Amino acid sequence: MSKGVIVWLTGLSGAGKSTIGGELLSHFHELNLNAELLDGDEIRELLSKGLGFSKEDRDLNIRRIGFVARLLARNGAIAITAAISPYREIRDEVRRLASLDGVRFVEVYLNPSLESLIARDTKGLYRKALAGEISNFTGVSDPYEPPLNPQIEIHTDTQSVEESVELIMKYLQSEYLIPCSVENARTASY
Amino acid sequence: MSKGVIVWLTGLSGAGKSTIGGELLSHFHELNLNAELLDGDEIRELLSKGLGFSKEDRDLNIRRIGFVARLLARNGAIAITAAISPYREIRDEVRRLASLDGVRFVEVYLNPSLESLIARDTKGLYRKALAGEISNFTGVSDPYEPPLNPQIEIHTDTQSVEESVELIMKYLQSEYLIPCSVENARTASY
Repeated sequence: MSKGVIVWLTGLSGAGKSTIGGELLSHFHELNLNAELLDGDEIRELLSKGLGFSKEDRDLNIRRIGFVARLLARNGAIAITAAISPYREIRDEVRRLASLDGVRFVEVYLNPSLESLIARDTKGLYRKALAGEISNFTGVSDPYEPPLNPQIEIHTDTQSVEESVELIMKYLQSEYLIPCSVENARTASY
Repeated sequence: MSKGVIVWLTGLSGAGKSTIGGELLSHFHELNLNAELLDGDEIRELLSKGLGFSKEDRDLNIRRIGFVARLLARNGAIAITAAISPYREIRDEVRRLASLDGVRFVEVYLNPSLESLIARDTKGLYRKALAGEISNFTGVSDPYEPPLNPQIEIHTDTQSVEESVELIMKYLQSEYLIPCSVENARTASY
């Protein structure tokens, strides 16, 4: 009945949340740890179909992701979330509720420069947002409130996916939130 | 990384889903097992605020409960659901999806007679529904499709809560889905 942990990835569209979240999930599974990736877009389809991108709807969506993450973590799994989660108040609310469950909330701020995101723009969304074709686009026409005291901050414009994943894994190990090796993971689960 | 199980309680309003679900949860926790009760009313507030009681909205709500139950169970926890879940098709869909995750779906049909529910009517809902004051009330003005092959069927008008819980616990033990005693549970988790 040991607790899991919430690894909360936050940052703008294109910051690397889904990619890094997916890599983390593979690493946790290699360590034989129970883990889930709650990806913003997927979860929206499953839990929040019909909700839009107003502050109220975004808050509701993030609260739902937070609720599911807490359920998983208080039952021993690692819940990785990969959603923009632009508002500080709601992230802090999830942290408080997790704490009541005895679950650690590790906030990971993926923080590439906005310029680098606009320059790369793999999905062409920034171009559209800057042209006014998408309203409520976080970082352009909608606010993003950066974490004030994230456990980890990564400049994903200059740090690679591998480096980013290693930073997060090392942090979790140093806080004894995950075992240090497959061997230890096996020992710990028996 | 062993799998959990979904204990899916289904039945009309007043059939005993929340009560029996709560008792099961206590029993699982006494056995040191990770478990959650996903209660229909609570989950509606958290995951499905704004949805109504049309077939479409009910289906969406049950799919969300099913999704969360699967996430929990595939990460080793026991997910107990206590929602009317009136439509067979959606229950069977959750069972199929759980099976893809390697998770057992135990359907428990709580089946008191409608007459007994109307006679007891602890919340006064049947009286209102029969008077036409509540529309879309399952069993009165909205359909309930009973399971065709439930793993367990309990006539909760004649069987007590204790008997019902014991039937479910014994079934789960006989299928090796939970350990038989606290001692075994402790051994199994080390």
